[in-house]
Amino acid sequence: MRFADRHCARWPKGKPPLSEAEVAAALRELPGWTATGRATRLTRRFTFPGFGAAIAFVNALAGLATAEDHHPDFAVRWNVVEVTSSTHDAGGLTDNDFILAARLDALPEAPPP
Amino acid sequence: MRFADRHCARWPKGKPPLSEAEVAAALRELPGWTATGRATRLTRRFTFPGFGAAIAFVNALAGLATAEDHHPDFAVRWNVVEVTSSTHDAGGLTDNDFILAARLDALPEAPPP
Repeated sequence: MRFADRHCARWPKGKPPLSEAEVAAALRELPGWTATGRATRLTRRFTFPGFGAAIAFVNALAGLATAEDHHPDFAVRWNVVEVTSSTHDAGGLTDNDFILAARLDALPEAPPP
Repeated sequence: MRFADRHCARWPKGKPPLSEAEVAAALRELPGWTATGRATRLTRRFTFPGFGAAIAFVNALAGLATAEDHHPDFAVRWNVVEVTSSTHDAGGLTDNDFILAARLDALPEAPPP
């Protein structure tokens, strides 16, 4: 199933995060996203027409993060929102980060990648 | 007049930003805020009980920024919102950054410094 069609679920305790090869494969579903920090963080910069549209996206992101119980970091600079996701408990990236990323891309408030 | 009682106004074109001495003096009105980058940026970290309270503050910040037409950068990490203000046109800090900071502190959604 595509990441965009799945929901976040508890990553089993002790299960290692995705390997760099698994991250590289998963990224194929997510144009616009980049893995950084030796594949421990997933990041995308969203650019909007203005501040209001950026804040509308932030609120949609907050709703999604709450619903999925997976909360990415994000930074807002006027019309730009830079989102960074990681699964801290697992010490790296898990399916949950890719699910959240795919669902963020699918929000009506998100610009195309 | 205290910064908290003023509103942002256009900083005159060509007028230099506040000097380091002026910034140091202005900071006395703003416990919790720090000047960084050789007094070109004003920053404060706001900590909340949880993600929802942090997002409520972000929305109050967005309303204030829109009303004052002065938009700080901010970064959200779960229950922490780090705000950074600067007056890019002036190349440093101006009264407007201190007015925005004081008004952020006065928001009902803001925690005490």
